Amino acid sequence: MVQLVNEKDLSFLLYDVFKAEELTRFPRYAEHDAATFNSILDTARGIAEDFFAPHNAKADHHEPTFDGQNVETIAEVKTAWKQFADAGLLCAQHDYADGGMQLPTLINMAANAYFMSANPSTVAYSFLTAAAANLIQAFGTEAQKNAFVPHMFSGRFSGTMAMTEPNVGSSLGDLTTKAIPQADGTFLIKGQKMFISGGDQDITENIVHLVLARMQDAPQGVKGISLFIVPKFNVHADGTLAERNDVQLAGLLHKMGYRGTTSTVLSFGEQDQCTGYLIGEAGAGLKYMFKMMNEARVGVGLGAAMIGYRGYLASLDYAKNRPQGRLLSNKDPLAKPVSIIQHTDVKRMLLAQKSYAEGSLALCLFAARLIDEHQADGNEDSAILLDLITPVVKSFPSAYGPKANDLAIQVLGGAGYTREYPLEQCYRDNRLNPIHEGTFGIQSLDLLGRKLWLHDGKGLMLLMQRMQQTINETENETIQLLAEIFQLHLETVQNTTQRLGKALAQGQTNQALANSALYLDMMGKTIIAWLWLDMANKALQKFADSRHAEDQQFMAGKIQAAQYFMRWELPEIEHYAKLLNQFDDTCLNMQVDWF
Amino acid sequence: MVQLVNEKDLSFLLYDVFKAEELTRFPRYAEHDAATFNSILDTARGIAEDFFAPHNAKADHHEPTFDGQNVETIAEVKTAWKQFADAGLLCAQHDYADGGMQLPTLINMAANAYFMSANPSTVAYSFLTAAAANLIQAFGTEAQKNAFVPHMFSGRFSGTMAMTEPNVGSSLGDLTTKAIPQADGTFLIKGQKMFISGGDQDITENIVHLVLARMQDAPQGVKGISLFIVPKFNVHADGTLAERNDVQLAGLLHKMGYRGTTSTVLSFGEQDQCTGYLIGEAGAGLKYMFKMMNEARVGVGLGAAMIGYRGYLASLDYAKNRPQGRLLSNKDPLAKPVSIIQHTDVKRMLLAQKSYAEGSLALCLFAARLIDEHQADGNEDSAILLDLITPVVKSFPSAYGPKANDLAIQVLGGAGYTREYPLEQCYRDNRLNPIHEGTFGIQSLDLLGRKLWLHDGKGLMLLMQRMQQTINETENETIQLLAEIFQLHLETVQNTTQRLGKALAQGQTNQALANSALYLDMMGKTIIAWLWLDMANKALQKFADSRHAEDQQFMAGKIQAAQYFMRWELPEIEHYAKLLNQFDDTCLNMQVDWF
Repeated sequence: MVQLVNEKDLSFLLYDVFKAEELTRFPRYAEHDAATFNSILDTARGIAEDFFAPHNAKADHHEPTFDGQNVETIAEVKTAWKQFADAGLLCAQHDYADGGMQLPTLINMAANAYFMSANPSTVAYSFLTAAAANLIQAFGTEAQKNAFVPHMFSGRFSGTMAMTEPNVGSSLGDLTTKAIPQADGTFLIKGQKMFISGGDQDITENIVHLVLARMQDAPQGVKGISLFIVPKFNVHADGTLAERNDVQLAGLLHKMGYRGTTSTVLSFGEQDQCTGYLIGEAGAGLKYMFKMMNEARVGVGLGAAMIGYRGYLASLDYAKNRPQGRLLSNKDPLAKPVSIIQHTDVKRMLLAQKSYAEGSLALCLFAARLIDEHQADGNEDSAILLDLITPVVKSFPSAYGPKANDLAIQVLGGAGYTREYPLEQCYRDNRLNPIHEGTFGIQSLDLLGRKLWLHDGKGLMLLMQRMQQTINETENETIQLLAEIFQLHLETVQNTTQRLGKALAQGQTNQALANSALYLDMMGKTIIAWLWLDMANKALQKFADSRHAEDQQFMAGKIQAAQYFMRWELPEIEHYAKLLNQFDDTCLNMQVDWF
Repeated sequence: MVQLVNEKDLSFLLYDVFKAEELTRFPRYAEHDAATFNSILDTARGIAEDFFAPHNAKADHHEPTFDGQNVETIAEVKTAWKQFADAGLLCAQHDYADGGMQLPTLINMAANAYFMSANPSTVAYSFLTAAAANLIQAFGTEAQKNAFVPHMFSGRFSGTMAMTEPNVGSSLGDLTTKAIPQADGTFLIKGQKMFISGGDQDITENIVHLVLARMQDAPQGVKGISLFIVPKFNVHADGTLAERNDVQLAGLLHKMGYRGTTSTVLSFGEQDQCTGYLIGEAGAGLKYMFKMMNEARVGVGLGAAMIGYRGYLASLDYAKNRPQGRLLSNKDPLAKPVSIIQHTDVKRMLLAQKSYAEGSLALCLFAARLIDEHQADGNEDSAILLDLITPVVKSFPSAYGPKANDLAIQVLGGAGYTREYPLEQCYRDNRLNPIHEGTFGIQSLDLLGRKLWLHDGKGLMLLMQRMQQTINETENETIQLLAEIFQLHLETVQNTTQRLGKALAQGQTNQALANSALYLDMMGKTIIAWLWLDMANKALQKFADSRHAEDQQFMAGKIQAAQYFMRWELPEIEHYAKLLNQFDDTCLNMQVDWF
């Protein structure tokens, strides 16, 4: 049996670090308690273990095919989809009145963690569908909601987000898909979209595309973009399928990993008969899409974290059970070999993985907690803080999850490089995450060029307050040493941010943003270091007096991983800070002809 | 047409940096000159372009199959093998009398660079064969040489190195394959070997395995290991094939990348009829094997460098030709999109790749130069220096080549993640290199635990002398600033090394070696930084007065890449040095039960 997550860790994060039970004080979650949370998590784990994990490798080997007419996916994907939908997980967070469970985002995120660990490519269909349904539910007309949302919640229809175009990539303002108004209030959609995940498949009866397009005479740039519902099949008012819409699969893209999820090129309106339904106001398409996008970005972070996490657990298991070599101080060739986990360099690779994976999961759950505080309790500060850290929630796990998988392969050595073990698939799958839903570079510009300065920099202030509070809460002497390291580097982050902000305010845009990738990495390490400090404190609070050896070991492991991250990883930001503070122009001044 | 290497760069490295023409002063190379060198390089490039590059992707998609009887590889591999052999490249470095060209290692390494870039998995068969033939030529009896070597040089037979066993991995001293002496002077070999590259195939008539095994009653550990020639088919004195030897392919391993090269599990002596021929003295097997191994380690470094190099060139080409987005300071949505290479973050990713790939190639060519100085000119200092840096030559490219490929994918974004572009294969192929021929961890222990202290530390002294000389040679003001940065960090390396050496001398083995991976990375960055300083100096010397724009651009690019490496990469070692100097015990003290 593949271990999807360390149960002790997940329970610790939910109930001790992020205080899930406190959420039940919000009226929206009042009917929940730890028992209902755990019951839903048990259900999720069971479905993930029984219906998702078993075909993770098979879906990779037998990726979807397209014969020019139909896409074919393996049967296991359909079964998994049905199990997920039937358990109510596609609408778990929605109102009881709409068939949902009013589940806190925090618990929903934890449930999703099992699926992301078990089989990220099969569950991608579910996540996209849930996110698309959420968007229509939030911004659609009553008729649009009635026509699509219940069928997406039930799993009859799936959803996609169709933004990227072949010649446009990340530069959404340049997209050219057209929307031509019709007499009946609908629009004719015409254009091509690329890299559309789940853009076609044979899993659901219908597929609901959310398509960004530009109306005739709309202004250039992002302000001219509107959002449309474009179903694969048109839908009668009672939800039954009407005629095929003019959306054609032009072809499947063949990816290195995440092979179970179709990645498609879609042609809209080749026959000039593609009907689209405008969502909300014309020109506000990107605003609506960003609701879905921000949800998707946290989802990408979670996926990256959990692929990293699963690789960590698999390599840990191997390291404990693989005898090889002797301790360096033992020169006796007759001595029995030790398990490789006894070698310090293997411990290093496992500690790094633990710190990345458990830290990344904590980050995603923290984001989920903020969503709950805002959406269920109206806390605007939480929304501002979430908005600030979303680039980090997307990017830190996406950068360090693959690093964890790289180390997992290395722990296994030659075995890790073979398809006979699961690590190489983790490595291939996870490489997608620094790319989709906004690359690392795009996220870094979003953070340094925009997010930090919204609301007069209030997000950063809120973050610093929370960090200071954690430092102040540190009582134990060992952990205080870590808090001191943290505080030292935190000052660097503050000073660097001020300096860059000043340059931006003075209009030195190109200079100040030149090394934005370093800034994003710096902020990521700082936030993860803070979460580790918090985890160390809370592990100590909870387990210091326990008489169970397992509890003591868990606590010691958390403290040691916090120490690893604080001593080994966090100090790297000093080097980044130097380059940022000097406005190092090495990259900025490199000329094209010099390459 | 795939560009395999920047021709201007290769020529600069060979003739300006590593002074290839000076090698012709050695009697062994006296009949060569730049014209013969270039003629051989042209031949190599032609064969690489015409017969290796075209099936690189195909060999990945159609990996070798095994039906229980025979292995089948695609026809293109056989054609490429024949072209390589017919051009005399399997024995290019050998004596004229043996059919060789007495080619300097430096030029041979450059020729191999084309093949490694074009198709690392097909050329792996050639490299293993050349290395095995070199070993037999060096240590075999006359009869052994006559029976095997000419047929390996001609390409009729291939060669392998069969060391690893399923339960032994890197801990060679524990291997259990047995060698039982027979009355006729041969040995019966019995045991299983794993991860044997090229261990079976349908490319050559015969396969010559070099097998490490233990004679009965041999001492435990590495001193009990002997080396045997074990052919797939026994061979008559005239080179014709005799009966099949008892070597069976137990199965193929399925790798993430390098799929064109078979990776095998081999059973020797299942029928108790496997004949082996002892090479040299009993118990000295590992010493002989390390001749082949050291050659293979430099070869791994070159492969990693060139896969990184090819990815760099492919992503550079894409970045120049892909329009997308606008400069950050340009807010006009009507402005024409720029090529993505104009974006500073893309320049960063290209500069990093350039610094890793061109730096790694320089490192491998430097190693080749040392081999020539030793083997053709008897320079013992060069041998000592080569011995010291071999772990770095193997490891720096293996660690940073994959990083380059990671960045190459990122430059392309979603396209880079698809199999429609060549980058994802580079990324999968290159992941093997930090594993085989000694993992990064093994190399780090070899460097810090052993190599540094041989010959009373003379290797390090020689290295420091060369580095100081380069610093002294720096005349240009811009480059002097880089030399100052280098000197600063070089002092850190010296101090750290002294401190660790002292601890080792005092018997603090576990403490001093606990963080050896950091030390290897530190030394790698230092050596590459030094080579960049040297390249910057020599580019300036050669091109400063040139009136050709291309020359000026090449020079400016070398200086900018040197600046990138010196400012962005090298300073990271200060953090490593701190952990090393503090004998940080985070990893050492982590307990198994805490994970």
